[in-house]
Amino acid sequence: MNSFELDPRLEKDCLVLGRLDISMLLLMNNALVPWFILVPRTYKTEIIDLSEAEQASLLEEINILSAFIKSNFEVTKLNTASIGNIVGQLHVHVVGRHPSDYCWPGVVWGTKERKKYTDTQVSEIIVALKQQFGNKFI
Amino acid sequence: MNSFELDPRLEKDCLVLGRLDISMLLLMNNALVPWFILVPRTYKTEIIDLSEAEQASLLEEINILSAFIKSNFEVTKLNTASIGNIVGQLHVHVVGRHPSDYCWPGVVWGTKERKKYTDTQVSEIIVALKQQFGNKFI
Repeated sequence: MNSFELDPRLEKDCLVLGRLDISMLLLMNNALVPWFILVPRTYKTEIIDLSEAEQASLLEEINILSAFIKSNFEVTKLNTASIGNIVGQLHVHVVGRHPSDYCWPGVVWGTKERKKYTDTQVSEIIVALKQQFGNKFI
Repeated sequence: MNSFELDPRLEKDCLVLGRLDISMLLLMNNALVPWFILVPRTYKTEIIDLSEAEQASLLEEINILSAFIKSNFEVTKLNTASIGNIVGQLHVHVVGRHPSDYCWPGVVWGTKERKKYTDTQVSEIIVALKQQFGNKFI
């Protein structure tokens, strides 16, 4: 789907790290928590609108991303969610949480506090993602 | 898994509607939004800890429940999430949202406002669930 365009709000708030089989992989530009977002390249807006094959691909990407977050950040709980009340484009948050993080035990959605990543931090994350996803990540 | 026990907090806040293949099906006792919860009968705490077969069963239950919510309530967006920062037992929220609901466009988690269901409302929901899930729902 070459014509796919990312929602402007996601583009503004996030860093686009690369693409996977079905999704764009984004990083919320908030170094306070490891907060990744998968954006399937589709204009369908609900997970149940995806085909069985698309759901399977998305689930696989959630699984690999979850494992990545657990092994690369200090994380005691994963928060995985498809919400979309504000940004209608289908996207799945996968967030690593820890009792010492900035909004524990509340959810990250709706919080305003942000700390931007440095370029070095982003580069390191991309290198680690390439190791985790192999040639699925481009 | 006969020994499975529901987390006391879920038991307190929710109505247990019945059981599906892998999950208990709960209804948050808050008639302000259609807010259902799937609780897989396992003591694993993350979706990625489930086997492939367990993930497939859970995904199927999410799909059927999502379709049920869309066809039985006034819903413009589904919010689907596994969080678990407060209740560690693995559970998946599937919530039907609408721009006129009590906390739109915010998320339901962390909100305090509640309105209990009447017995009649709960009975009607159970009848409709039986139609949707067929003999998967007991």
